[in-house]
Amino acid sequence: MKAKTKYAVLGGGSWATALVKILTENNNTIHWYMRSVYAVEHLKREHHNPNYLSSVELQLDKLHLTTDINQAVNGADVLIFVIPSAFLASELTHLKNLPKEKVIFSAIKGIVPETGRIVGEHFHFEYGIPYDQIGVITGPCHAEEVALERLSYLTIACSDDTKAKVLAKDLRNEYINTKTSDDIIGTEYAAVLKNIYAIAAGIAHGLGYGDNFQSVLMSNAIREMKRFIGKVHKMKRNINDSAYLGDLLVTGYSVFSRNRMFGNMIGKGYTVKSAMMEMNMVAEGYYAAKSAHILMDKLEKKSKTPIINTVYSILYENKDPKKAFKKLTEKLD
Amino acid sequence: MKAKTKYAVLGGGSWATALVKILTENNNTIHWYMRSVYAVEHLKREHHNPNYLSSVELQLDKLHLTTDINQAVNGADVLIFVIPSAFLASELTHLKNLPKEKVIFSAIKGIVPETGRIVGEHFHFEYGIPYDQIGVITGPCHAEEVALERLSYLTIACSDDTKAKVLAKDLRNEYINTKTSDDIIGTEYAAVLKNIYAIAAGIAHGLGYGDNFQSVLMSNAIREMKRFIGKVHKMKRNINDSAYLGDLLVTGYSVFSRNRMFGNMIGKGYTVKSAMMEMNMVAEGYYAAKSAHILMDKLEKKSKTPIINTVYSILYENKDPKKAFKKLTEKLD
Repeated sequence: MKAKTKYAVLGGGSWATALVKILTENNNTIHWYMRSVYAVEHLKREHHNPNYLSSVELQLDKLHLTTDINQAVNGADVLIFVIPSAFLASELTHLKNLPKEKVIFSAIKGIVPETGRIVGEHFHFEYGIPYDQIGVITGPCHAEEVALERLSYLTIACSDDTKAKVLAKDLRNEYINTKTSDDIIGTEYAAVLKNIYAIAAGIAHGLGYGDNFQSVLMSNAIREMKRFIGKVHKMKRNINDSAYLGDLLVTGYSVFSRNRMFGNMIGKGYTVKSAMMEMNMVAEGYYAAKSAHILMDKLEKKSKTPIINTVYSILYENKDPKKAFKKLTEKLD
Repeated sequence: MKAKTKYAVLGGGSWATALVKILTENNNTIHWYMRSVYAVEHLKREHHNPNYLSSVELQLDKLHLTTDINQAVNGADVLIFVIPSAFLASELTHLKNLPKEKVIFSAIKGIVPETGRIVGEHFHFEYGIPYDQIGVITGPCHAEEVALERLSYLTIACSDDTKAKVLAKDLRNEYINTKTSDDIIGTEYAAVLKNIYAIAAGIAHGLGYGDNFQSVLMSNAIREMKRFIGKVHKMKRNINDSAYLGDLLVTGYSVFSRNRMFGNMIGKGYTVKSAMMEMNMVAEGYYAAKSAHILMDKLEKKSKTPIINTVYSILYENKDPKKAFKKLTEKLD
């Protein structure tokens, strides 16, 4: 029998909790790092994460809980990062050493704001981790439905197929179906871009556009995503696979998506700042819009991404959402 | 100045009413046929269709209302059929003569149950109308949102581009954006198949599957639709255009879709018969599932359409929805 992989999960939010639930149910031991001392103590006492997916009962005997990121990283071979991209760089400053033989999977859907890079690239360029030790865990998957054990499909991407397969196996169960992919750049960008499109869907809703328009917006968004990812990393992929289109739909059509909610407030007349304050958090698509816009600008392909441009102009150039969307509607078909 | 096209709209439902609203607002005169004597009299008196989109005020001076299909057909050059596919053949028996020079646009999303044909083919084979006089008006478009003048996009397909362009122009306004296409077979099949997928979405919802699964289902559905249409009529098309993907999404994600509602009842345990009785109507996807299944069987491509097969097996072979969907989930990715 092959030895079990030693996993660390870095992050204490709902998606981290969902992954811990799945992995421990499959009999894996997890080094679980989270910042909150309170959450760790509550977890040890009550077997529930007090802040996220608090209905889920976790198997304490399979968890090494720690508030020291170094301890979790040192204890594991495969590190699953689930820290919001906005905090990743600052969290990593606490890490004394990241040995190059570690395997890194990102379950983060965002751009690292300090570098404008997706997470895989961040680890590659900042820590010298080779690309064949970098992977992505992507949905479409709301963590809340994992808590309810509702059937969900995950895609595990890694250019080293063996590593993808091992994690795919460890994440598969009665209610989780997994597949593997070698498109780490494409799946990660899809997960990033979908948040921008969810903001667009929210703005449209806030402005009073209806379901007919939303479907046109999503139909244009997936075509735009295909063009974008094709420019960044050309390879054979079916953009209608679950990791791309499915992920776009589950976010774009979800009224619970924070990105959609953020957009909705902007469409209803909130300023960007007041929407952020009201939500008490920053929607990941906010950073993604900036990075995506800069990247397309650099590649001189800005004309190919009208939806991203529109969201960017509203969030960063103080453009009136109503007028900006009116102009956008003329570019869609 | 070019002479206005003489239009007839055949049908008295919500989509017919929406098209009449748009066309008359663009200063077109319409011969409008509907079966209901009561509706015609109410319309003449109150300027509203009593049964559908009853909030919409219609311009009586631009309408020739009639309950005689022959009168409407004889008065017009371009006939827009908006009769539910289940009643089309029997309605057409009242038609004394259909001259071959008439142009036929179908705004019907369904299969003619008596022949198993899509509407364009029905007019071609039963009435000898040449294909370049046959076209399709397709969404994504809920009629209710046209009544509210919410921005919507229509695709007008005809192999004769000039005819498509004239109608596209007559349907374009402040809240309707139109584009043309030469894919009459593909757009019409898309409009037909989406109703089967909406039934599937409804069954899944009724069985308790969540949003994560719905997005995977839709992602698989659009790939299945592409395979299906590619087998029936191979040509260059982007399946993610609004007429295909957009139309699928607006129906699959709408809780108001009758097809989705029908599926939902089946998922919740109603028999097919009792769901139909409860709804007091037949969802168009019911017929579509049969015709689509027979067609794929004939082309020996049944293995390529697991979602259609599953819906068919539940509706026509008395398969248990829960078991059939369990099996289906293993075929999706």
